[in-house]
Amino acid sequence: MKRPLVFSLDLELPEPTEDDKRADLERVADALGADSLVPTISALRTLPDILRKKGFRISPVFSVHYGSTRLIETNTGSCFALAVDIGTTNIVFELVNMKDPGPSLRLQFKNPQIKYGEDLLSRIQHCMQGGLKELRDSIIAGLNEEIKRAARQAGITTKEIYAAVFSANTVMSHLLLGLDVSHIPVSPYIPVVSRALFFTTSEVELDIHPDATVYVFPNAGSYVGGDIISGILATGLHRKESPQVLIDVGTNAEIVIGTKDWILVGAGAAGPALEGGILASGTVAKEGAIYRIDIEGSGVVKYKTIGDSSPLGICGSGVIDLVAELYRVGFIDQRGRFTDSAPTVEIDGEKTFVVAKNDKAVIGINEREIENFLRSKAAMFTSLYVLTQSLGISFRDIEKFYIAGALGSGVQLKNAQLLGMLPRLPEDRFQPIGNSSLTGAGMLLRDASLLDEIEHIHSIITYREMNTDNEFMKEFPSARFIPHTNPERLG
Amino acid sequence: MKRPLVFSLDLELPEPTEDDKRADLERVADALGADSLVPTISALRTLPDILRKKGFRISPVFSVHYGSTRLIETNTGSCFALAVDIGTTNIVFELVNMKDPGPSLRLQFKNPQIKYGEDLLSRIQHCMQGGLKELRDSIIAGLNEEIKRAARQAGITTKEIYAAVFSANTVMSHLLLGLDVSHIPVSPYIPVVSRALFFTTSEVELDIHPDATVYVFPNAGSYVGGDIISGILATGLHRKESPQVLIDVGTNAEIVIGTKDWILVGAGAAGPALEGGILASGTVAKEGAIYRIDIEGSGVVKYKTIGDSSPLGICGSGVIDLVAELYRVGFIDQRGRFTDSAPTVEIDGEKTFVVAKNDKAVIGINEREIENFLRSKAAMFTSLYVLTQSLGISFRDIEKFYIAGALGSGVQLKNAQLLGMLPRLPEDRFQPIGNSSLTGAGMLLRDASLLDEIEHIHSIITYREMNTDNEFMKEFPSARFIPHTNPERLG
Repeated sequence: MKRPLVFSLDLELPEPTEDDKRADLERVADALGADSLVPTISALRTLPDILRKKGFRISPVFSVHYGSTRLIETNTGSCFALAVDIGTTNIVFELVNMKDPGPSLRLQFKNPQIKYGEDLLSRIQHCMQGGLKELRDSIIAGLNEEIKRAARQAGITTKEIYAAVFSANTVMSHLLLGLDVSHIPVSPYIPVVSRALFFTTSEVELDIHPDATVYVFPNAGSYVGGDIISGILATGLHRKESPQVLIDVGTNAEIVIGTKDWILVGAGAAGPALEGGILASGTVAKEGAIYRIDIEGSGVVKYKTIGDSSPLGICGSGVIDLVAELYRVGFIDQRGRFTDSAPTVEIDGEKTFVVAKNDKAVIGINEREIENFLRSKAAMFTSLYVLTQSLGISFRDIEKFYIAGALGSGVQLKNAQLLGMLPRLPEDRFQPIGNSSLTGAGMLLRDASLLDEIEHIHSIITYREMNTDNEFMKEFPSARFIPHTNPERLG
Repeated sequence: MKRPLVFSLDLELPEPTEDDKRADLERVADALGADSLVPTISALRTLPDILRKKGFRISPVFSVHYGSTRLIETNTGSCFALAVDIGTTNIVFELVNMKDPGPSLRLQFKNPQIKYGEDLLSRIQHCMQGGLKELRDSIIAGLNEEIKRAARQAGITTKEIYAAVFSANTVMSHLLLGLDVSHIPVSPYIPVVSRALFFTTSEVELDIHPDATVYVFPNAGSYVGGDIISGILATGLHRKESPQVLIDVGTNAEIVIGTKDWILVGAGAAGPALEGGILASGTVAKEGAIYRIDIEGSGVVKYKTIGDSSPLGICGSGVIDLVAELYRVGFIDQRGRFTDSAPTVEIDGEKTFVVAKNDKAVIGINEREIENFLRSKAAMFTSLYVLTQSLGISFRDIEKFYIAGALGSGVQLKNAQLLGMLPRLPEDRFQPIGNSSLTGAGMLLRDASLLDEIEHIHSIITYREMNTDNEFMKEFPSARFIPHTNPERLG
């Protein structure tokens, strides 16, 4: 039987008799078939009374906590849990009704730590100046507020949430737990902990059920976080015979190649994010985001926004469309410079191609932004190329490319290929998987046996630092062109 | 390697290098050789700083907690632990220096719950009237006060105590944890829990290290507590091929017969305690207690007190000497009645044989008290006889008799045999083992592998209710005589 990380069972227990003198807890444990049932003291204190008031028919909540099953609530009508992806920029979470396999409520909010620094390094520096508690308090407060909002939307109390699974990069995981991150950015880049951790709510100070289980994904070092491991889990590449690739582009781009026997991660590739970081007009994929752009030869721009709302900004897939279309119609050259035919306007002293306007601002892109984008795509592609080469295989040997993160939703493959972001392989080799980090966290909530798969992934993963890699350095400059100065590299 | 339940190790860890990027915790786990190392959040928060301040030479404290090893303190110079035997009347505990195999500090104090009722039943009744929290609070407060006293005597702080093992009867264990005892005295006599439990300090509210491990022995039902299981552990009878007996006389008398394959406990035998309960002049074995008594034919009494102090009262072994000597010199008959030759005085309307006097009172015994004593010894002997008979074996088949509790210290075997308390077998068959419940708890502190032995004992133990046993009822009356109306029963 597939057992979730947290679950409620409707138990009808036999009542005690002269021939059946099992203790109350043993009765529950036997019904569950769990040798290793570990009760919380609160559950033990309420159990005898509830059992007898309910005629030995109760619906307790159990959670998996390391190797044990815990009894965390003796009787309840509901059972909710959280899957949380903590990004450096955005936090996305799902409130999962563990009793209903239907779609879950999903919420997203800005990581409140942003006020102490946009990127990881500036937050680490803040910690080194005594700001660790401040950073931790801010994310916990943000989480608690948003969890409360989600619970309200779902019509439940936060005490009905019995588990939370956190997937995040190594720094974000550390800050969530209040762990020292000051050794992470300094050679040899040592985190406090790598293994998967379980905590109780009170240790993490989340406002959910006081005995809820909190799980934090393991990391594979300072540069390969739990979000990558969770993403790998979501793709299932760790169960495959032939090589698969996961490309995850968030605030950083990460490339994973692996099979059931080995997993290699290229991490730390330079380049700003596709989302937010590149364009002044950038936005995450939310209502009003421009996600699809066509440019006619005349320079007329057609675009689509999420929810058909008035345009707010351009999200990742929109940026790829935009640069690809600019190149296709000849408004930019191979280096990303505007050609003479490009209908640009000058904004803040920069030649800018305008996509749309709203009440507040002009939504567009300038040369510096295009250059940033091309640096990002170059870093991503070069990582992919160098890793694949280092394994002695070619792109054609890779069975499947899973495209996650900002790239993972709504990107037009033909445009990404046109720009030289992705290899030139048939469309069926590519599979967009959205937020794979969040997906992996949600999968674990629904199937505790994945804990073993996570350990397996954790045990076979290795990583290759790209920032200081000679091959990477050699290949990177050619990849900054559209599509590449050595197009044979594209497969 | 024998690993204690809690231990401190002096670790010299390799410092991180470019070729050794293990996380701080993984470094500790690898040195320990513990796959399942579970850190507390406090330990994780202090670990990176301590490691670097101490040049990667630290002395952390680890505890065994269910199947895992926990890291509960990152660096310490000392490691203490508590073994506690909670009796209905007395609480005895040892403060064990886990770094020093020498003798431990031992303290004893009255169970503060006594003010809510002398015996188990009256305390349970107090609970049923809403007094559970009061009973729990009183024992926790008492423990915390005495632990503080012990720490002071040992010259340590209570935060240097990293584990506590509790051995107690089922009601006492429940009250320690604040668990409902109201179903224990009512058929079919169901406790809340039987299995062994681990808690953290904060759950049990002990004033020791905040992440200390608290272990409570399992029970085998309402009438066979963790103290019996701990006592069995202390004797090692669960590892033997041939039958062994454990006789434990505390507030109640319990008889255990067993081998490595089966263990039978006779529980609930009627009769007041040897200690305290029987004599107005009774006392526990402490300074001033009369533990040895000789009576000359002339009626002159010679006695010895513990510490050669002035007499305070008579302890268990003294009572046995006294009744045996009264019988030997002909001052009482087979039924325990004073003969005409007995030099008695009248006190409070009762014929009393005086042993000693002190400033406050006369120390002696009257007929009613002798009768109570004989009822106790009859209950104990009859349980032993009936259990042995039910197994189809005789006393001679029993390899060893372990004598624990009030009987276990300083009893003269010849006198106990003269009275018909114990079978007439050679002296080498009997082995006094003092407070076996406390001994078992202390053994577990020093060797965590005994957790498996405890599970083994727990899994093979069965019990036989004596109060309602027909054989017991039939045999009991004859055993109330000295030594017995059927002396062949004595073996």
